[in-house]
Amino acid sequence: MAAAIRLARWHQGRTGSNPSVATLIVREIDGGPVIIGRGVTAIGGRPHAETQALAEAGEGARGATAFVTLEPCAHHGRTPPCAEALVTAGVARVVAACTDPDDRVSGRGYAILRAAGIEVCEGVLAEAAASDLAGYLARRTKNRPHVILKMAVSADGMIGAEGAGQVPITADIARRQVHSLRSVSDVIMIGSGTALADDPELTCRLPGLEGRSPIRLVLDRTLRLPVASKLARSARSVPLWLATSAQQDDPARAALASLGAEFLAAECHDGRLALPELMEDIAARGASTVLVEGGAVLATSLLDEDLVDRLILFTGAVTVGERGVDAPFALARLPDGFVPVRTMQYGPDRMDEFERQR
Amino acid sequence: MAAAIRLARWHQGRTGSNPSVATLIVREIDGGPVIIGRGVTAIGGRPHAETQALAEAGEGARGATAFVTLEPCAHHGRTPPCAEALVTAGVARVVAACTDPDDRVSGRGYAILRAAGIEVCEGVLAEAAASDLAGYLARRTKNRPHVILKMAVSADGMIGAEGAGQVPITADIARRQVHSLRSVSDVIMIGSGTALADDPELTCRLPGLEGRSPIRLVLDRTLRLPVASKLARSARSVPLWLATSAQQDDPARAALASLGAEFLAAECHDGRLALPELMEDIAARGASTVLVEGGAVLATSLLDEDLVDRLILFTGAVTVGERGVDAPFALARLPDGFVPVRTMQYGPDRMDEFERQR
Repeated sequence: MAAAIRLARWHQGRTGSNPSVATLIVREIDGGPVIIGRGVTAIGGRPHAETQALAEAGEGARGATAFVTLEPCAHHGRTPPCAEALVTAGVARVVAACTDPDDRVSGRGYAILRAAGIEVCEGVLAEAAASDLAGYLARRTKNRPHVILKMAVSADGMIGAEGAGQVPITADIARRQVHSLRSVSDVIMIGSGTALADDPELTCRLPGLEGRSPIRLVLDRTLRLPVASKLARSARSVPLWLATSAQQDDPARAALASLGAEFLAAECHDGRLALPELMEDIAARGASTVLVEGGAVLATSLLDEDLVDRLILFTGAVTVGERGVDAPFALARLPDGFVPVRTMQYGPDRMDEFERQR
Repeated sequence: MAAAIRLARWHQGRTGSNPSVATLIVREIDGGPVIIGRGVTAIGGRPHAETQALAEAGEGARGATAFVTLEPCAHHGRTPPCAEALVTAGVARVVAACTDPDDRVSGRGYAILRAAGIEVCEGVLAEAAASDLAGYLARRTKNRPHVILKMAVSADGMIGAEGAGQVPITADIARRQVHSLRSVSDVIMIGSGTALADDPELTCRLPGLEGRSPIRLVLDRTLRLPVASKLARSARSVPLWLATSAQQDDPARAALASLGAEFLAAECHDGRLALPELMEDIAARGASTVLVEGGAVLATSLLDEDLVDRLILFTGAVTVGERGVDAPFALARLPDGFVPVRTMQYGPDRMDEFERQR
């Protein structure tokens, strides 16, 4: 199962509205287990993993064991559901990690297998698989994307300096780590304050992954984003969404639209954008994972509304000193309800990952 | 309620993944009913109709009657659910058309109202409202968009002529009607055969509605669409999606992507794209209404797979004659299971509308 979970990661962030799952078909050959079929959800989301793994295994699938990271689907389209494909192929046993919360599956995939006399073993390494499937599961169960809040804090607890534009808090190796995070997210979100102060591009610029930049989303209630900003100027090559309550006839809207920006109509409440509703609309557009790279205001709002599932905190070695902007949280003062899951050292910088406890 | 349904039509096709619904707040003044608040889902999908209608009605809402075309929402975001907003405003009675099939609503909106002592009258003109909400309802209940198949058939039962490109079957007034249909759809779908034969642009070119062109979707399994086609050349100004099973490294893909086309990964079965799965993926991207303007092959496939909800059949006065391409259906030979709902005359052309009986 661990191998299947690793295989599923290959297409993470590249399978559209479908989750990236994997299937391995394994059988005993000469007394040891041999992988005879591998499948991972194709880029774009179809075909599903099972179909591909069974095609590779061919007749060898008869009597074999299938390892699946998500319950096989049970609903009919033009192609038969994956649960039936496993039955037809004659596998003897299915070992599965997560149950699919989709109304049309949700135990029905397992039921089809069991009804055909296949031995089903559920929940194997379910937590590890669920962590990678977090976006899909959040969309199905919470009607919103999986939200990752990333923040880089200096040694003296700052996230930047007043009026100084982008202040480097972390070194190159940590920045590359952030670009790699971007490449597996569907949406990067920032507030308009950060967009104005930093003029960021928010693309993935790792060699070989240049085409993997997610949608950039700016929360821009009154459309303050300048048409000359890097974000606006690159809207034709990498999608740019602006969440706004600006009216249809706002001239800024026409100017930004002509550069290729798209708009998400957002509700306002006390002069601030309604974030839960916005997250719901992002999920309705098929996006499963949101990486928040915004500033202190956006981070605080999302934490206040309990919309953060994972914190990624980089602690840099540099100090910002005078005119520093205080971080909304840091290693010494974490928001409530988050538990540590991983710590890494990237050169001079430390990365700590935390998950929201439910 | 009829007035509310008409008001809801104002923003049809322009409310993103949310349905276009309307609310009217009505009270007796000097012995007659007076509309004191009007609301329609804002362009983009938020704010909801109820909020706006209640804001317009102000204190006058106390004791008044609210007419809503869809059950008020019951789930909390930043803004309170619309059902609670109606309670807070003190309306005495709510008259509703359709029940919202969304898991988080589905009768719960009515329950909140009744628990607060508000009189609720459900199902008023429900069929008429459901017809306009067909896209939203299909997405929630069938997990696919509402599919409208439009076809223009000549007096001699042809849809075109072999090798002749676009053959005018209908006159200007009917063509304008088609452009108007486009303006309230989320997606226009054609097959690659039609794209190659006709080189259409598939935009809405009605004066004043030029900006209302939906996403153009071509079913193009092997990416035959030429980069010089009108569709590809306009991909930067009006979105173009290509449903394909072409691999990531297909050179045609890179060329079309550089012009701004997006790709939907599609499964194949017996050398044809799997349409039910494709429809599911379109809905997962937030699109609710698909207008099919493709040729005979696509129309036949969709009908065979029972994926058509509504037929719009134009019967022209012209005859095509020799080398004509037979229509898959016509007034005299309709597909099974469709019942007539409307007939209109547009100049020399007749339009008949049919609905799939369930």
